[in-house]
Amino acid sequence: MNQRIVLAQRPSGWVDEACFALEACAEPAVGPEDVLLESIYLSTDPYLRGRMNAGPSYAPGFALGQPIVSRVIARVIASNNAHFQVGDVVWGFLAWALRSVVPRGEGLHKIDPALGRISHAVSALGMPGLTAWVGAIEIGQPAPGDTVYVSSAAGAVGQLAGQFARRAGARVVGSAGSDDKVAYVRDRCGFDAAFNYKTTDLDQALRTHCPNGIDLYFDNVGGATLEAALRHANVGARFPVCGMISAYNEVGDAGIKGLQAVLSKRITMTGFIIYDHVHKLAAYQARVAPWLRSGELVFHEDIVQGLERAPAALIGMMKGEAIGKRLVQVAAE
Amino acid sequence: MNQRIVLAQRPSGWVDEACFALEACAEPAVGPEDVLLESIYLSTDPYLRGRMNAGPSYAPGFALGQPIVSRVIARVIASNNAHFQVGDVVWGFLAWALRSVVPRGEGLHKIDPALGRISHAVSALGMPGLTAWVGAIEIGQPAPGDTVYVSSAAGAVGQLAGQFARRAGARVVGSAGSDDKVAYVRDRCGFDAAFNYKTTDLDQALRTHCPNGIDLYFDNVGGATLEAALRHANVGARFPVCGMISAYNEVGDAGIKGLQAVLSKRITMTGFIIYDHVHKLAAYQARVAPWLRSGELVFHEDIVQGLERAPAALIGMMKGEAIGKRLVQVAAE
Repeated sequence: MNQRIVLAQRPSGWVDEACFALEACAEPAVGPEDVLLESIYLSTDPYLRGRMNAGPSYAPGFALGQPIVSRVIARVIASNNAHFQVGDVVWGFLAWALRSVVPRGEGLHKIDPALGRISHAVSALGMPGLTAWVGAIEIGQPAPGDTVYVSSAAGAVGQLAGQFARRAGARVVGSAGSDDKVAYVRDRCGFDAAFNYKTTDLDQALRTHCPNGIDLYFDNVGGATLEAALRHANVGARFPVCGMISAYNEVGDAGIKGLQAVLSKRITMTGFIIYDHVHKLAAYQARVAPWLRSGELVFHEDIVQGLERAPAALIGMMKGEAIGKRLVQVAAE
Repeated sequence: MNQRIVLAQRPSGWVDEACFALEACAEPAVGPEDVLLESIYLSTDPYLRGRMNAGPSYAPGFALGQPIVSRVIARVIASNNAHFQVGDVVWGFLAWALRSVVPRGEGLHKIDPALGRISHAVSALGMPGLTAWVGAIEIGQPAPGDTVYVSSAAGAVGQLAGQFARRAGARVVGSAGSDDKVAYVRDRCGFDAAFNYKTTDLDQALRTHCPNGIDLYFDNVGGATLEAALRHANVGARFPVCGMISAYNEVGDAGIKGLQAVLSKRITMTGFIIYDHVHKLAAYQARVAPWLRSGELVFHEDIVQGLERAPAALIGMMKGEAIGKRLVQVAAE
């Protein structure tokens, strides 16, 4: 029997499990030119929070009673389409379901297993990786000797952003929300320093770990962390902004204090959405895949087993319990 | 008898006249290589507010009991220096005094009267003009058909920023704090639309006057106006930030709400300080002076007479009572 996860109610503030329901659903019918898929990995991503709202975000919202949709890595198990063969591994924006049919195979992307782990197609070699590259390198333009501060440093994007900036010669400092994450970022990813923002005073930590100030702040979170980064920024600092997760679950909006630093320190703050940069993906993959295969670039995945655990996995990811990219595995590779 | 204006006490919040004192002072002695000047125009500028504080700003602060210093246009009335002749008109960072001596003439810039009105050396052909150019054109990059919104549109910088953007083919909308200013901006400076932000709901005004959204917001004020501009910005909007005057007189900091729009709309917010761009001044003057002489470019000066009225003139400028550049005239041209 097929199963899926649907949006049962819209969240107000923090998402909880009552927002989701696991339900049985029909086996999808496979028409002419269609492709039948068995889901392997469901991607959990911060942007999904915005799609659970009724209001506009940069992606269209989910409908009540309809399945949650995200990037899913899947195997072709039946195909009426000449472009897809049984056994092909693909990714696409698919329902959180055990099996899905894709009319005419539209929107599916084949994954080249030679590139690396298939799961990397939605993480280190997919949009999170490209987000880290565009923000940390293209927008942030780290120079040798710069100090780079990365918030959510153990996240799917943050761990790569810091490693990319470090390859460009910068001194990289990360913050994360648990001692395990701090250890991962410092000891495994090679950040020059890292601290637990939940147990440290932010200003004191930045004074200690960024004694020469911050030249590049890779903003994953907004809120109080952004305010602290403004206080410790150097003249001419770059602030690529790829997420403000601290605001996603706020019902109100406390505002960002100290934004006058943008003027007095000539800061450039640049918001970016990775959808505007997808044309760069193949070049990014060609550059970065060898670093992953050789182990020069470290990337941690946090894999939760079972479709029924997908809501809790997503909620936990938003609350910061995952190290690296969190995936939900619903079938064997 | 010589006279000067000194900082009598530091302001907390809004500046008032008790912060200043007019006092008699010695006639300056003219040593070898020195230049004696008679002040003609004192420049009043928003950045002076920051220099009245004890804390750090981007320019060093004024000392208690010492004179207020700003750009001053002056005439050489005695010179022991071969580079300056009696009758030369110059500008420099000088005390707010009737007469000043400049050791060895250091820091003085000669004004070429052929370029235009001598007062323009501290306004349309000086830093305010260059600020408008760098922000509206170099950072803002207006394209034909863009909608540009300029706050403080009747100010020394704003009126030029709007006119420059209009020459680049943009539709330009301004806001100002009185009906007289609105009429000046619309009827004299040729803005496509203007509104009085004190008597209009900001969101409604922006909906009405920027029906296609804002592509470039030239931020002179910060605060609620910046928040509104974030709400009405288009994807890819540029926000050159050259002032946050609304915050200068705040004791607290209310914070800027809705900054998530930087991310969702891929806004680039760029703070800039004109001191970083002074090397562009001669090229700017050569480009813009002919437009001023021909009348294609309009520039209004608001001239207050008398050194004793300088404190009130500065306070009034900060409170928004001046149209265009406010100068204090203390001697005939």
